[in-house]
Amino acid sequence: MSEMESLRKDIANITRKIIQLIGTRNEIARRIGELKRLNGLPLQDEDVELKLRDQVINECKNSGVSEDAGLKVLSVLLSESKRIQGLDRDREVISLMSIFTRVRELERSGRRLIRLDVGEPDFEPPKVVVNGCIKALMESRTHYTEARGIPELIDAIREYIYNKYNREITNDEAIVTFGGRFAIISALQAIMREGDSCLIIDPSWPAYKQVIRYIGCRDVAMETSIDNGWEVDIEALKEKLNSVRAIILSYPTNPNGKIISRDKFNEIVELCNEKDVTIISDEIYNSYAYRDCPSILDTECKSFIYTTSFSKSWAMTGFRIGFAISSREIISKMAKIQSLMLTSLPEFIQYGAINALKFAAEDVKRNSEIMRRRIELACSELDKIENISYYKPDGAMYIFPMIKKEGIECEEFCSKLLNEKGVSVVPGKGFGNYAKFFRISLGRDGKEIVEGIRRIGEFLR
Amino acid sequence: MSEMESLRKDIANITRKIIQLIGTRNEIARRIGELKRLNGLPLQDEDVELKLRDQVINECKNSGVSEDAGLKVLSVLLSESKRIQGLDRDREVISLMSIFTRVRELERSGRRLIRLDVGEPDFEPPKVVVNGCIKALMESRTHYTEARGIPELIDAIREYIYNKYNREITNDEAIVTFGGRFAIISALQAIMREGDSCLIIDPSWPAYKQVIRYIGCRDVAMETSIDNGWEVDIEALKEKLNSVRAIILSYPTNPNGKIISRDKFNEIVELCNEKDVTIISDEIYNSYAYRDCPSILDTECKSFIYTTSFSKSWAMTGFRIGFAISSREIISKMAKIQSLMLTSLPEFIQYGAINALKFAAEDVKRNSEIMRRRIELACSELDKIENISYYKPDGAMYIFPMIKKEGIECEEFCSKLLNEKGVSVVPGKGFGNYAKFFRISLGRDGKEIVEGIRRIGEFLR
Repeated sequence: MSEMESLRKDIANITRKIIQLIGTRNEIARRIGELKRLNGLPLQDEDVELKLRDQVINECKNSGVSEDAGLKVLSVLLSESKRIQGLDRDREVISLMSIFTRVRELERSGRRLIRLDVGEPDFEPPKVVVNGCIKALMESRTHYTEARGIPELIDAIREYIYNKYNREITNDEAIVTFGGRFAIISALQAIMREGDSCLIIDPSWPAYKQVIRYIGCRDVAMETSIDNGWEVDIEALKEKLNSVRAIILSYPTNPNGKIISRDKFNEIVELCNEKDVTIISDEIYNSYAYRDCPSILDTECKSFIYTTSFSKSWAMTGFRIGFAISSREIISKMAKIQSLMLTSLPEFIQYGAINALKFAAEDVKRNSEIMRRRIELACSELDKIENISYYKPDGAMYIFPMIKKEGIECEEFCSKLLNEKGVSVVPGKGFGNYAKFFRISLGRDGKEIVEGIRRIGEFLR
Repeated sequence: MSEMESLRKDIANITRKIIQLIGTRNEIARRIGELKRLNGLPLQDEDVELKLRDQVINECKNSGVSEDAGLKVLSVLLSESKRIQGLDRDREVISLMSIFTRVRELERSGRRLIRLDVGEPDFEPPKVVVNGCIKALMESRTHYTEARGIPELIDAIREYIYNKYNREITNDEAIVTFGGRFAIISALQAIMREGDSCLIIDPSWPAYKQVIRYIGCRDVAMETSIDNGWEVDIEALKEKLNSVRAIILSYPTNPNGKIISRDKFNEIVELCNEKDVTIISDEIYNSYAYRDCPSILDTECKSFIYTTSFSKSWAMTGFRIGFAISSREIISKMAKIQSLMLTSLPEFIQYGAINALKFAAEDVKRNSEIMRRRIELACSELDKIENISYYKPDGAMYIFPMIKKEGIECEEFCSKLLNEKGVSVVPGKGFGNYAKFFRISLGRDGKEIVEGIRRIGEFLR
């Protein structure tokens, strides 16, 4: 046998041996799962995983294996263990959009529904934005652009941020994105490696977890509770921050409308600075804030990505445009990802967005005032229902009530409510471990909201 | 020590052992690399990799490891070997868009260039499309839509496909995508698992390889040569098809304008049917075809994804819209990916696209005729240059000439041509192993093309 043949045989043997070892490892994981169940221990143990991660990094150094390869393999090993222990990370997250699609099908079939499900305001987009798009279309602004957005829009973003936060950013610290969703995806892809973890404060927008899992990373949830006003427990957070590369914050929060205090926000920022954790601050509901609302741009955060969208504040959901602000390095990575996936954004929409930033402050203010009134209205209607408790939103455009009735869970509740009363709301499970909750969106006018909540009350009696 | 502690210790030891084995494997790979170099053997050997893959799948079955996990680990092992052998898969692919950005910067600084680089026609989008968008904007079609596209546009696509190919498709066999690029990304993500390979016929659009690598898969290139008129060697293809899950075909081809015969196309389809390989047929240049051009929709292909875009035929690059046709299963997966990444496409643009399909046939025809004349014009200008040989395009909107001068490579050529003559073209290396080639785009008017090529001739003398 030639040396080459013999080496190739060795390679094949070692490869098989590695798979066998994974098999053995799975057997042990199975036994651990049994023991945990017997002793009532939590199935997931982040400390153990964290220690293992350190050991792998260390072993990679000793064995001439790249850290990236080692962590990727560890990520496979951990998901195998979870599969074996019946703790599948890929469990389906309830998709708001699939509910949206189902409801829309019902509507197309002629059924008249009260739509309190989708996070889409019923406001018209600013006229100046529509006109800006039309003008750009007529001037043949219909070509490829820079992947990170046209310079004129980047300039407008800089000016807007300066006026709002008194913070100067450079051209290469901003990027125009395909809505807030793609801002978050490209942000995560820019900073996370496969197998990395990202912390989420629950309840939270389901897309965070979906996206984190989709890119091969792991979501770690920290629950907050309505019982203490959805406050973040800093001690618990401290612990969790040890094992993650990033955390997503979003105030006001979808679905519960929570805004934490500036002091607490700063405390979180300091912790992240200490522990080298990147903060993704999704400030999409920022203009719907009815108490003092912290922004990452007001802090001394070392590593952050600010994301937002024109969808909610400017009622521009169907324009699919947003933006992000971060360091030059991260923005450059995000631009590469956007270029690779999307080439660039529609040119004329970017011209429309310039007008949003420059000439639509009045629209944003009016929308915000309407939303404040809707919150008041909805809350006084909810107060009439006995079997419900809720936190009065500090902001955003949702209420997240809890059903105080035994034996009824959110999915059944939402589906029956839709069928029997023609009211669509979203089950709490989509936002985390909140089986007794559901989300009411205030994206429709006051009359419809009141009627919808009245029917919810009827249904619950 | 409790049983739990002891089991955890075992897990940690096995994990470390796995990393050590990867280290040992790397050592052997290093030696193999040396031997290959000594004996002048190719560094990459797909047969060996393919055999290894079978062994891994087999071992997974015996060891109770999920196939997904095994293949993921194999993918890490193979990239480690390549890293060790200096054959890094992540080598940078020259990005056309980065050149585009550089050129645009030059232009913003005031320099007047002849732009024969970007694949963007200078035609105006059809008036009926612009008007359709404007009308939709004024009617407040500015909301979220179904992730797969509005039903009215899906209907228009079905009708268009029926008229063009006499092929009936159902609603759930079509999806509206964010341009041709996202159609291809979501198609690949729908059908490929990590570590899977996709075959590309080179020269090819650089995005194919970029995207395949980005999603953790492997591109396998099959080169064609100008010497035999860019024909596909069926015997060589047969061999290559054994190790891939999918192949991307695109006729007319960017960058060389090649169209293969219907017979040969059918032969490829039959081979793929036999070998269970999915064909992604990117037919974006289909309306710029100046000889009989095969389409996947004319064949009996068992597993395929047809992709196209409004960008080229309708001159709608800046609208970022395209569509794909496939089986219900694949389209449903693509829709989920699009929903996850992008939510949905801009609503009013979808209304514009309906008009493109219904009322813009004349525009498409006119654009096509202009492009045909530009090809003739460019070729007769190229004929005047001695140090160049080229294949006269059967279609598309590019010419891909070879420089017949010793000691000059495409990158240097393109950069000097830009600096000294103010003409921007794209280096051949971006399209595969074509260091002596460059791409001329015919996206500008005849006068500019002629002047650009004249300067190329001057530069080469």
